[in-house]
Amino acid sequence: MKKIKIALLGIGTVGGGVWDILHMNKDEIVGNCGYEIEVGKILVRDVNKKRHDGIPKELFTSNYEDILQDEAIEIVVEVMGGIEPAKDYILRAIKNEKHVVTANKALLANHGCEILTEAKKQGVHVYYEASVAGGIPIINTIKESLAGNKFKKIMGILNGTTNYILTKMTKQKVDFDTVLKEAQEKGYAEADPTADIEGYDAAHKLTILASLAFGKQVEFQQVYREGVTEIKPIDIQYAAELGYVIKLLGIAKEKEGVIELRVHPTFVPESHPLASVHDSFNAVFVKGNAVDDLMFYGRGAGDLPTGSAVVGDIIAIIKGRENIQIEEKQLFPQDNKRIMPMGDTESEYYVRLTVKDRPGVLGKIASLFGKHNVSLASVIQKGEGDPSVSLVFITHYTVEARVQRALEEINTMEEVVELGNLIRVENGEKEMGA
Amino acid sequence: MKKIKIALLGIGTVGGGVWDILHMNKDEIVGNCGYEIEVGKILVRDVNKKRHDGIPKELFTSNYEDILQDEAIEIVVEVMGGIEPAKDYILRAIKNEKHVVTANKALLANHGCEILTEAKKQGVHVYYEASVAGGIPIINTIKESLAGNKFKKIMGILNGTTNYILTKMTKQKVDFDTVLKEAQEKGYAEADPTADIEGYDAAHKLTILASLAFGKQVEFQQVYREGVTEIKPIDIQYAAELGYVIKLLGIAKEKEGVIELRVHPTFVPESHPLASVHDSFNAVFVKGNAVDDLMFYGRGAGDLPTGSAVVGDIIAIIKGRENIQIEEKQLFPQDNKRIMPMGDTESEYYVRLTVKDRPGVLGKIASLFGKHNVSLASVIQKGEGDPSVSLVFITHYTVEARVQRALEEINTMEEVVELGNLIRVENGEKEMGA
Repeated sequence: MKKIKIALLGIGTVGGGVWDILHMNKDEIVGNCGYEIEVGKILVRDVNKKRHDGIPKELFTSNYEDILQDEAIEIVVEVMGGIEPAKDYILRAIKNEKHVVTANKALLANHGCEILTEAKKQGVHVYYEASVAGGIPIINTIKESLAGNKFKKIMGILNGTTNYILTKMTKQKVDFDTVLKEAQEKGYAEADPTADIEGYDAAHKLTILASLAFGKQVEFQQVYREGVTEIKPIDIQYAAELGYVIKLLGIAKEKEGVIELRVHPTFVPESHPLASVHDSFNAVFVKGNAVDDLMFYGRGAGDLPTGSAVVGDIIAIIKGRENIQIEEKQLFPQDNKRIMPMGDTESEYYVRLTVKDRPGVLGKIASLFGKHNVSLASVIQKGEGDPSVSLVFITHYTVEARVQRALEEINTMEEVVELGNLIRVENGEKEMGA
Repeated sequence: MKKIKIALLGIGTVGGGVWDILHMNKDEIVGNCGYEIEVGKILVRDVNKKRHDGIPKELFTSNYEDILQDEAIEIVVEVMGGIEPAKDYILRAIKNEKHVVTANKALLANHGCEILTEAKKQGVHVYYEASVAGGIPIINTIKESLAGNKFKKIMGILNGTTNYILTKMTKQKVDFDTVLKEAQEKGYAEADPTADIEGYDAAHKLTILASLAFGKQVEFQQVYREGVTEIKPIDIQYAAELGYVIKLLGIAKEKEGVIELRVHPTFVPESHPLASVHDSFNAVFVKGNAVDDLMFYGRGAGDLPTGSAVVGDIIAIIKGRENIQIEEKQLFPQDNKRIMPMGDTESEYYVRLTVKDRPGVLGKIASLFGKHNVSLASVIQKGEGDPSVSLVFITHYTVEARVQRALEEINTMEEVVELGNLIRVENGEKEMGA
């Protein structure tokens, strides 16, 4: 198996996520890029401090030169955060002709142009999908799949902490300070929450998105910024009365060469897709002159979602290195998988029957479901007194074949006029093991 | 300006969209890949038939050999649809070492493996983003950005026609046949609607998605398939009573090497993000073991959205050809754009004031808004009889500076106790020129 060596700078939440993904999804990664990705070194301040489980001690170093001088390491993954020394480390990696993956939004919003210019000069890649909206692949989508568009507008819920706070304020009708305290206790907000609640974090991300989409270097200071600290329960209540919800949005628009950039609490119509993005989820809405409206929704933070973006970038660099997608990638690397027969699939089921309105019919049908091990979650009976009535059942989560066998037998009942319809119910939360 | 020549096979809806995008977004495309994309030839059955406006007649040919033998043409874009002769043309392009972009879902669902194997053998790219969900970049996202994931589930509204029909049946409470007829009259459904309403189209797309995500060649015939023709208004009504909406979903899941594949009408909980995907919009919901839940929402058909996906693929091939992203791409190709001052931005505005409850206050404030050319859309007054009351305004769409100047003057009024809050309203539909 061919290997590519990378180094991690930092092993906090995101670094730990990257480590976990590289191990738990090793087969998929090899299948997708033809290489095994091996962590060669991890830069930490103190090599003796207890870290993420299962990492061999000899991988840690506190001396960045160990990584820079290791020619086997082709990609440096910066997941330490903060401006310095991250900036210095990235620039030195580039000078040493190593590719870079970074999740550092503050750094990119403030010094992105300098870093990208340096990378271009040295002929290396700097990828930064994880810097905006965690696992949502918005950066690569704008750069690649939507490269044929002129962008008119980018608008997003770019900060999970403030979306969590606004969701709680809306649902529980409590004030900002109460929710912030609760969020801090639960780990959804930091001890010093300024970067989130004052909109700096969202403004960093908007700077990165706007620079990319509009092809112009945007300065972070050019983004108009308001946080959520002034939102009162009464404003949320008025918003609801008027048919809106309040969201902290980052908004970037372009019209005739003039770019508008702002982060502030916003009234969003209840019918807008962004209005139903709750809790710590992120979403980015894009309008291009070819693709029209497009929205991406997902987890904006967390070790594995953000790690997913980092690993995607590492794979993209590997594939870009030598046009690997054609030569190395296996077409169907997992061809040993098999297809499940429909009868083995599991779901809840909606069943509508038309039956003669006679005493005991419902009991008889329910018994037949029971006989086939199908348990019922709800029953509706309509049209009492008519010669024939509708009976509607929702089953509990069960195996398709059982429902089919029960219905076959039910259909032989003299009282059953018609099997009206069977429709499967998709209820993600109730799936076992989902 | 360096140029890349492509050929279009067909110039119907999607082909016309590609032609338009290449022309209207020429600057953006050059900025993104360093090349101008030029249509060198267009294959049509009858070169004399009236076509898409503005295409020089000499580009048309009815002889495919003209394209195959033209060494300047590096990419063949198949937008004719149908299995044959599309399959034959694509295989011959590959044999002639030309890259291929195709939007042909039926072809890929039935012969994708053969085509991709041939491409791998010849060392050329076959890209097919446009084959699933139009402008939504789901294929490249699964292939690239999410390449570090093991996929557990893919679930989507993959057919715009049936989603339009189900939306109308739900909102207008009419039956299937009535809505289908209306959809056919409006051009949302074809004269022969079988492929859409019987779920074949969605099953084609699910075949492509599942093969890619699960790394196994899925046969189209292995997808369980039910259409929407049996959905009755009474089912939709019961669904609503029980807290669900009915959607035609394509569902693919994997657990321990066993893959589940099905297309059928489905009860979706009203709170699920897929439930609020209306009309002809498409959406794809993905669950990866790293990225967790991710949803993509956008236009699943139409000349420009589908063309956007095709052009994105063309650009990806150009960049992949020689690692162009580093050498050719300009970092900020549009650096002449300027940033708009916040005072020039436009929006609707929510304004909440606390005022003394005296006769004439509302009139005085409304006049001051009017003086600064801010027109009011709604006013709410609460708490009558208290010494101070809340006054809430929503303005019509206007310029920020006017609202700020009005509020400055309003704030000098003796009757105004406090400027409670100003929150901007994002009401996409009402924007001028949006």
